[in-house]
Amino acid sequence: MARFNGLMILAIDIGGTSTKLALVEDGIVVVRDRMDTRGDHDEHAYVERLVDHAQRSARRHGATISAIGIGAPNGNHLTGTIENAPNMPWKHDVPLARLVSERMNVPTFLGNDANAAALGEWKYGAGRGYRHLLVVTLGTGVGSGSIVNGELLLGAAGNAGELGHMIIVPDGRPCTCGRNGCLEAYVSIRGMWTSHEELMTAAGRKGSPMEITDMAEAARNGDQEALHVFDQSARWLAIGLANAVCATGPARIVLFGGLSRNSDILMPRLMTHFEDYLLTIYKGRVDIVTSELPGDDAALLGAAALAIVGASSSG
Amino acid sequence: MARFNGLMILAIDIGGTSTKLALVEDGIVVVRDRMDTRGDHDEHAYVERLVDHAQRSARRHGATISAIGIGAPNGNHLTGTIENAPNMPWKHDVPLARLVSERMNVPTFLGNDANAAALGEWKYGAGRGYRHLLVVTLGTGVGSGSIVNGELLLGAAGNAGELGHMIIVPDGRPCTCGRNGCLEAYVSIRGMWTSHEELMTAAGRKGSPMEITDMAEAARNGDQEALHVFDQSARWLAIGLANAVCATGPARIVLFGGLSRNSDILMPRLMTHFEDYLLTIYKGRVDIVTSELPGDDAALLGAAALAIVGASSSG
Repeated sequence: MARFNGLMILAIDIGGTSTKLALVEDGIVVVRDRMDTRGDHDEHAYVERLVDHAQRSARRHGATISAIGIGAPNGNHLTGTIENAPNMPWKHDVPLARLVSERMNVPTFLGNDANAAALGEWKYGAGRGYRHLLVVTLGTGVGSGSIVNGELLLGAAGNAGELGHMIIVPDGRPCTCGRNGCLEAYVSIRGMWTSHEELMTAAGRKGSPMEITDMAEAARNGDQEALHVFDQSARWLAIGLANAVCATGPARIVLFGGLSRNSDILMPRLMTHFEDYLLTIYKGRVDIVTSELPGDDAALLGAAALAIVGASSSG
Repeated sequence: MARFNGLMILAIDIGGTSTKLALVEDGIVVVRDRMDTRGDHDEHAYVERLVDHAQRSARRHGATISAIGIGAPNGNHLTGTIENAPNMPWKHDVPLARLVSERMNVPTFLGNDANAAALGEWKYGAGRGYRHLLVVTLGTGVGSGSIVNGELLLGAAGNAGELGHMIIVPDGRPCTCGRNGCLEAYVSIRGMWTSHEELMTAAGRKGSPMEITDMAEAARNGDQEALHVFDQSARWLAIGLANAVCATGPARIVLFGGLSRNSDILMPRLMTHFEDYLLTIYKGRVDIVTSELPGDDAALLGAAALAIVGASSSG
């Protein structure tokens, strides 16, 4: 990775609940901050708070921000807009790159959060050196980003890479996107809660679904329901990944996000099912690993990479 | 399309039943020939017959063959080998590009038949000018090829683009690939026969499945079973295409092959289901059309394009 002329990048990773900010230099997070995504009366008030946080961080560390990269759910690279995102406080399209750039007076680049994570893993993480890579985010939802032929796959409208919304069970569980049977409805943390609830209902018991870390702990201790939920999820995920391989033929799949942090429970089960569901011509030609980057750094470093890629292509 | 220096390309399109040959100049088929794919005791005898047909065509038309392009099921662009193809007479891997090139003494390039068709549609057909394109072959099986960022998507191992083997019904119908629930098991001509048989069995009748052209004719005349089979297939196909859009985000999908020739029955039903199954962020951003190229020309012109692309990248 070439040194980026000592430029300090402001990286922003927007989630439904919290917004993470970082100052990034040469692919290293040097300052971190975080704020609530919710609570503003509109997107302009949100942008004011965001700018305030960013400027305070920059001042405190004597940094000059040269470019801004933002990863957000349903972020569109080509338009710089957050489109129709179901988990965001704003239900309409928000031209966030323009709003932030006008207030900060710095070039601002926005992209899908999962695509940003894919860039982060590709440039700084477990995907380094791969010309064909798939990065899948397993969190509250399921996102994905692909590198093909050594380039981020954006698609014609700037929004390619929505593996979480591949339908794997026609007429299956309702999904947050308004359709049915999406991978995300089965494999995300939310999907695992649903699976757990279904098991409890079938057993005639009531109760609230466990946190994923508790469910993983229960599975480690041999709890049959928890083991079953992980095994089911691993199976749905294996089908989704095997299908994704049919589309883009990556050499490596990197898993990232909250669910992948319980990889001691998930990965052995995933590998077994993946071997079963993978088309013969791909067997032995694609591996699955978990992110090597700490915490949420893939998303932040990827947001920074969005700015670097954007700044060099527009400059 | 730039004139290719007057070179004559031998294009070969290998199917499970018949092998088509053509001499192609400047994207135009000038000579056609065809032979049986089956009946030889091994692949060497097949290559002898193939070379004999090609040389006779060239001699008869006073043509000098400058390069050879071959499209074949499970053809691998990177290795020039037909790998493990379930419908081929040879069950092992066959290094066909090398075998043909050694006998003809001409540079030979081999690729997946569906990828060849995608190249053909992209360079000469309904996909001209698209930087993000998906081409789906609907025949005895279902194949696919993608153009992303203005390049054929080969994937890490040269075998990306197997949409027909995306699993759309977990534990569903058996597929020729040895797994279950693949798109091809529902949407191909073979899949439609199975659907028809299932309907007849459910109605307590016996009978052999209709040819697709007869089934289309019956549907045109209001036959409820035939209409149901087309509607079901259109629905499965819509799910498969909606899933493929999530992966690569094309601006256009071109349908090609035997089934797409009954587009008056298939397309209206497909469009209705596709609108239902497409994720909101893609709505209005991707259209579906059928091939504009006559007969099997997409496959032959694509095989020729494989040779042109191969010859210019290796030259």
